[in-house]
Amino acid sequence: MKIDINSDMGEGFGVYRLCDDDKLMQAVSSANIACGFHAGDPDIMTRMVRLAKAQGVGIGAHPGFPDRKGFGRKELPFSAEEIRQQVLYQLGALYAIAKAEGAKVAHVSFHAAMGNMINRDFSLALMVMEAIKSVDPALIIFSQPDTYVEQAAKQCGLKTLTLFLADRAYDNKGQLVPRGIAGSVINDETAVRARVRQFLLDGTVTTFDGAVIAVRARSILIHSDTPGSLELARIVRSEIEANGGTVAPAAAVLAQ
Amino acid sequence: MKIDINSDMGEGFGVYRLCDDDKLMQAVSSANIACGFHAGDPDIMTRMVRLAKAQGVGIGAHPGFPDRKGFGRKELPFSAEEIRQQVLYQLGALYAIAKAEGAKVAHVSFHAAMGNMINRDFSLALMVMEAIKSVDPALIIFSQPDTYVEQAAKQCGLKTLTLFLADRAYDNKGQLVPRGIAGSVINDETAVRARVRQFLLDGTVTTFDGAVIAVRARSILIHSDTPGSLELARIVRSEIEANGGTVAPAAAVLAQ
Amino acid sequence: MKIDINSDMGEGFGVYRLCDDDKLMQAVSSANIACGFHAGDPDIMTRMVRLAKAQGVGIGAHPGFPDRKGFGRKELPFSAEEIRQQVLYQLGALYAIAKAEGAKVAHVSFHAAMGNMINRDFSLALMVMEAIKSVDPALIIFSQPDTYVEQAAKQCGLKTLTLFLADRAYDNKGQLVPRGIAGSVINDETAVRARVRQFLLDGTVTTFDGAVIAVRARSILIHSDTPGSLELARIVRSEIEANGGTVAPAAAVLAQ
Amino acid sequence: MKIDINSDMGEGFGVYRLCDDDKLMQAVSSANIACGFHAGDPDIMTRMVRLAKAQGVGIGAHPGFPDRKGFGRKELPFSAEEIRQQVLYQLGALYAIAKAEGAKVAHVSFHAAMGNMINRDFSLALMVMEAIKSVDPALIIFSQPDTYVEQAAKQCGLKTLTLFLADRAYDNKGQLVPRGIAGSVINDETAVRARVRQFLLDGTVTTFDGAVIAVRARSILIHSDTPGSLELARIVRSEIEANGGTVAPAAAVLAQ
Repeated sequence: MKIDINSDMGEGFGVYRLCDDDKLMQAVSSANIACGFHAGDPDIMTRMVRLAKAQGVGIGAHPGFPDRKGFGRKELPFSAEEIRQQVLYQLGALYAIAKAEGAKVAHVSFHAAMGNMINRDFSLALMVMEAIKSVDPALIIFSQPDTYVEQAAKQCGLKTLTLFLADRAYDNKGQLVPRGIAGSVINDETAVRARVRQFLLDGTVTTFDGAVIAVRARSILIHSDTPGSLELARIVRSEIEANGGTVAPAAAVLAQ
Repeated sequence: MKIDINSDMGEGFGVYRLCDDDKLMQAVSSANIACGFHAGDPDIMTRMVRLAKAQGVGIGAHPGFPDRKGFGRKELPFSAEEIRQQVLYQLGALYAIAKAEGAKVAHVSFHAAMGNMINRDFSLALMVMEAIKSVDPALIIFSQPDTYVEQAAKQCGLKTLTLFLADRAYDNKGQLVPRGIAGSVINDETAVRARVRQFLLDGTVTTFDGAVIAVRARSILIHSDTPGSLELARIVRSEIEANGGTVAPAAAVLAQ
Repeated sequence: MKIDINSDMGEGFGVYRLCDDDKLMQAVSSANIACGFHAGDPDIMTRMVRLAKAQGVGIGAHPGFPDRKGFGRKELPFSAEEIRQQVLYQLGALYAIAKAEGAKVAHVSFHAAMGNMINRDFSLALMVMEAIKSVDPALIIFSQPDTYVEQAAKQCGLKTLTLFLADRAYDNKGQLVPRGIAGSVINDETAVRARVRQFLLDGTVTTFDGAVIAVRARSILIHSDTPGSLELARIVRSEIEANGGTVAPAAAVLAQ
Repeated sequence: MKIDINSDMGEGFGVYRLCDDDKLMQAVSSANIACGFHAGDPDIMTRMVRLAKAQGVGIGAHPGFPDRKGFGRKELPFSAEEIRQQVLYQLGALYAIAKAEGAKVAHVSFHAAMGNMINRDFSLALMVMEAIKSVDPALIIFSQPDTYVEQAAKQCGLKTLTLFLADRAYDNKGQLVPRGIAGSVINDETAVRARVRQFLLDGTVTTFDGAVIAVRARSILIHSDTPGSLELARIVRSEIEANGGTVAPAAAVLAQ
């Protein structure tokens, strides 16, 4: 069974870095590359594309709001049309940089507040998906399961890949337990390995309350900007491989 | 005979405008659209693409240096690799915006200091042309005749379109007389009309010193940010049509 | 009787201009100078300070949100502490530029969304006023009458100057009639002159509904970014002088 | 004997950090605070001022070029007047933020390319020093010994404090050995301690070639953005104190 590991990459700017992108690139199979609005710049984007290509990692656009200072985490009063244009601009920028490296953008994963706002407004989600499809109908949309992003992508005929977070507690409805709550983030390696195993073998997760629920996901998301992200990615990868799985980019996962 | 009229468009930002783009779009046949670095933003780019498409105007990328305050006019110490990435990023951004509007980027015209620096360094010009070609080998490169930009584009197999400035004096070597010199800018309508006529019918221009030299050009460039640019564009268009010419976008000019 | 005429000035950026600041500076007595966040830059600020000093015009800081693209008109989710810091940063920047020109910042006038947000939150208004006072307790705060800005300024012991808009209709509660409504903007010169005269001689304005209400104001605000602003400023000035008034900066108005 | 330890502080932006400012602030006696152009923002500046005030650390402005992506390290084609305005703008911004915290800007230390360009042009250095003096004649200018910055500051009547780099090799003319050369950076703790001791007790440094030359300096500069900067600052501080010296801000050093 093929499964994807994805992470946000290239979220630095100029001299600044948020994580060791070079090492993390060796652990993931899909890279969501920041496109110069919330983070990233043409130089970093080019380096990420080269690294991803060299490692056989899937290249994805990771568009965000034009707010470097707030790192794209603030919801801002943009119109639907403005958000659509921001997505197109960033996707196109990465598309051209990838083409010049003989590579191809394979997927799109929305960053933080931009993703939250699209996920709250189905008509906005549809507008954005139609725009993405017009650039390249083969693009794969990454999303949490059962969100407007996933539904709008499907309605437009775009392929989707849903995500599982191995280090975060879920509630009985399959929602993430908010970070503020004790136990919402799972740091223990043995526990993370067990969760990855259960997800792989049974397709389930044991919730915060002890219930066992189905998880419809084909990719495991590693938050690159949390401490220990590199180690977590390596643990997830080794656990997948130890259980007979193969770590592969989104396109290969969907093609199997 | 088909001839192109081109102008830099969408060089505003937020509330700011440099010219009446809506009216100028009716007078030109190719629009060099600012791509958000020296000027322009996703909203303006989208509006320019829509206007151009509606008017049958050729859509071009007009990349510049990331320097809004200096309007891309300052030569900045960027490496060749940085300039190449800046061109790709901006070209790709417009490419995606155009695609989502059912349109296509047809040409590339470099802005100010970026153009000057590329024109002084043949190896840089080659790098940039190879990058542009990798995005779309059908892109047409706008340039002054006999420059490194033209030569590098040809060497890479890209099509080129050369420019004539109807309102600027030329010296006997075919170079523009610098703006500081009296008589370098020709404001008189009758004189401009005569120059357009001579260019169209004879393919020549009478120089500052009174010599008559050949002008190898297929497009007339109107500087949008000079006062009277709209009127100049209308004069040039009417003179072309009065002399049996047809105003047409770059691709149509090259295809004839 | 002394009365002030104030206008927002220096709201350009790089090559962009919103109005003819040089001429408008000759018509006003107080200049609210953009400080480089929503508009303006160190070069423009310096030129505005020099012009104001040469003309005897009062120099004011016109801080706004760090949002050039939106021209500071969007309400953005900044915390009270962030807004306080933004005001300090911009006020200090202008303060130093003015000092180096042998001039002094005399007043503060908030721009657009920043002003609206301060006016809706009294504790924020107090925080901002305390911060301004700590920079210079002699600074005069410009505001609409009976707002949180005015009340907070007074509570902190700062002097205030209230504004009258000669070209905008008021309702019976002394609020501006929103721009969308027909008749909310008064363009007719005779009508504007009559309103200025009535304000000067009687201290009243005739409302949209025909009532006559008191206007507590010592300065007439001219919106520099509306067409005809220069002419409006000249009309207001000539009407004040024709009625025996003197146009004078805020400090002189308060000192009389 | 009192001696200062200074370091560049607050050179982050939004979510980005270059060093552990909170801990470094405990080791230094003067903080050169980035002012929002090459790095820093109003939030970080405010936190740095509060930390410095709480620790009794001298507060300094650390102005740089408006180039976040290049971290102010690129020499850019700014005019003398533009550089003067950039210094004023940033100094004023920090001045106001400090005043609102009940603190005071005590010194100015130029960043990277801005410092290099000022140090190459005596008339520019004079312009900048006159501007700084007009803001506050008590400001202390930090500089390498025998530079245009120092000379211009003295000519304007500003106080100066000269710097010694304990971890960098000097040549026989008292210039720093360029970083590229092996041995130019001294990482060995014993060697650094010996150099601090020699500097304190004898006022000399042993050069790269083994000569002993006088060092005219009153402050030791720690580069905050090099690995181990915090440890280096602690070593320098402990060595000063072990030799009977007292670590004190610039003003106290000059007052002794």
